Amino acid sequence: MARAIKLAEQGKGPTAPNPTVGAVLVDTSEGDGTIVAEGYHTRYGALHAERECLADARSKGVDPRGMTMYVTLEPCNHHGKTPPCTEALIEAGVAKVVVGTRDPNPVAAGGVEKLEEHGIKVITGVLEEECRDLIADFLLWQSSHSTFNIIKMAATLDGKIASRYLRPEPVSSPESFARVHELRARVDAVVVGGGTLRADNPSLTCRAPGLDPDFRQPYAVVVTSRLPDNPDAYTLLRDRPEQVILWTTEAAASTTLADELRQRGTSVWPLPGGPRCFNLSVGFERLRYSLGCYTTLIEGGGRFALQCVAHGLADELIHFVCPRILGDNQAPSSYFGRQDVTMEDTMDFRIIKSERTGPDMLLTMRPL
Amino acid sequence: MARAIKLAEQGKGPTAPNPTVGAVLVDTSEGDGTIVAEGYHTRYGALHAERECLADARSKGVDPRGMTMYVTLEPCNHHGKTPPCTEALIEAGVAKVVVGTRDPNPVAAGGVEKLEEHGIKVITGVLEEECRDLIADFLLWQSSHSTFNIIKMAATLDGKIASRYLRPEPVSSPESFARVHELRARVDAVVVGGGTLRADNPSLTCRAPGLDPDFRQPYAVVVTSRLPDNPDAYTLLRDRPEQVILWTTEAAASTTLADELRQRGTSVWPLPGGPRCFNLSVGFERLRYSLGCYTTLIEGGGRFALQCVAHGLADELIHFVCPRILGDNQAPSSYFGRQDVTMEDTMDFRIIKSERTGPDMLLTMRPL
Repeated sequence: MARAIKLAEQGKGPTAPNPTVGAVLVDTSEGDGTIVAEGYHTRYGALHAERECLADARSKGVDPRGMTMYVTLEPCNHHGKTPPCTEALIEAGVAKVVVGTRDPNPVAAGGVEKLEEHGIKVITGVLEEECRDLIADFLLWQSSHSTFNIIKMAATLDGKIASRYLRPEPVSSPESFARVHELRARVDAVVVGGGTLRADNPSLTCRAPGLDPDFRQPYAVVVTSRLPDNPDAYTLLRDRPEQVILWTTEAAASTTLADELRQRGTSVWPLPGGPRCFNLSVGFERLRYSLGCYTTLIEGGGRFALQCVAHGLADELIHFVCPRILGDNQAPSSYFGRQDVTMEDTMDFRIIKSERTGPDMLLTMRPL
Repeated sequence: MARAIKLAEQGKGPTAPNPTVGAVLVDTSEGDGTIVAEGYHTRYGALHAERECLADARSKGVDPRGMTMYVTLEPCNHHGKTPPCTEALIEAGVAKVVVGTRDPNPVAAGGVEKLEEHGIKVITGVLEEECRDLIADFLLWQSSHSTFNIIKMAATLDGKIASRYLRPEPVSSPESFARVHELRARVDAVVVGGGTLRADNPSLTCRAPGLDPDFRQPYAVVVTSRLPDNPDAYTLLRDRPEQVILWTTEAAASTTLADELRQRGTSVWPLPGGPRCFNLSVGFERLRYSLGCYTTLIEGGGRFALQCVAHGLADELIHFVCPRILGDNQAPSSYFGRQDVTMEDTMDFRIIKSERTGPDMLLTMRPL
């Protein structure tokens, strides 16, 4: 199942709004069994993982009859873009199916029962937490109207993401930067606060190596109560204005400045609530339903990131711990903007993965 | 060698000022070989790891003749508390010795050459960085007059170690606390700043389970320019005054208050330099040469910890990353007290180990 999870992770991004799923076929005729075929759901509309895995078996001349399939998510039991996977498994003569987690989608569920009716042995709940973590985005899309939002932070040991002078200086290692660009390649929009726009003047583009020629850069969303009156001073607004969406106050969105920005192709969306208390949910829902965005990457600053967390809009944290100390209390922290809070009021996460990225440590977390 | 390193780690603390060393004996007569005996240097004055390992072999009826010994540090070649390990290896008829790192101590070195003279095959530099990391404390004791100082921190994702109200509230998990008590069991002194004394009123004792009945609690060092005029209000000064050392200004150390504290059994040491710029080296050296302390644990606060790092006195960081967000800029950070610094001025470390302690992530770091 661990291998099936690894396979599934490769489908993150292009499968949206479908879940990512991985499957392996195991020949158990000898010993603990050997993996003889693999597959994962590669993109929305393509074959499901189970069918990819069976196709892989066929291409290798392997007969799946009597074998065991491990699949991270319950095989679907309905006709969608593709016919039900349960049918494929039954036809292939698979003897046993090991399922990570059940399908929360009532339309597609019922796969386990269907397989059992046809005499296939089914085991469920294997590495269930990991398999559910894998489809946290899909579970959110099923249960809410929001995008799945990932906050990316790179902070020193003392929690700082820049010096007090707010210069655009790197905090993390080149290896960590490379990971950020991989992330940008699989999200639909990158979101930053206005402070980050002004301090860093970022491009927010994905510059990972080996991008498809038809790769579309993620939208850039900037949340600011002050619309930029000198758009040409900003890389984003100069180089790709039509991919930029400004979230601002209702008042600012109806100014002539807003109209000028719109004439350059930039979207200006009013959000309810005043500065520093925008109703961000409205923006994320509109990203999903107007622009087809399913996953966003929130890249700071600390005040904006905290707002997202405080409003329950942070679905995943990608946190680079950089083994260096700045030591200046006046420098901006990774998350700030609250007062009158004690350690009983912290917003808590659980670490689902930890890995080294060069000298740094990358922690992936989900809300508790 | 990895197993030998694991064994050696168990000797940390009681072997000081000797290095920690681990050894395994491998029977290579079949395949990749099997570990047939193990040993490590358990405490200062006891058998060295090589002799422990050979004794383990004898107790198991294993004849080491023709076998290979892996040892983290070059076998010693001199008569100290115990006769040279090279002799033991030669007598035992070991055919090959694999050495992690050479002995930096000129008195004990030469082991490799001695073994080779007697026809034993020697390979050096296997997992050398790890083997050197293992004896970083010993290398420091050899090259300086200081204690080996470990800074322990437990901080939120935004780098906070307490709320702005400075109440004694836990930041890390019970599992992380347990690790801190294990650490206190193997250091000779725990050092804190005066702010921590006043905010937390800590006992700084080791409360790990299964302590020896004759276990001696580490000394408690408090660095403060304001000597406490109400000693009974502090757990430390009330319960074990004779194990407390106050580092203070030369002026404060010659007051009647200082004499009153001394009459209760507490040591009051003057340090050169004024408040916030104490010459801390003087204190650490005196700990070593007056009280026989080899390893200290610095437990905050952030201002004091930063001073230690800035003065090059932090030899190891034990940093618990707690997956929670406080979000208040006014709360104290894990390291603070510098100004006018940019990201080019950070003090940099390398992560030598990462592990989970319950929900937290523990990073062990060394200066770059």
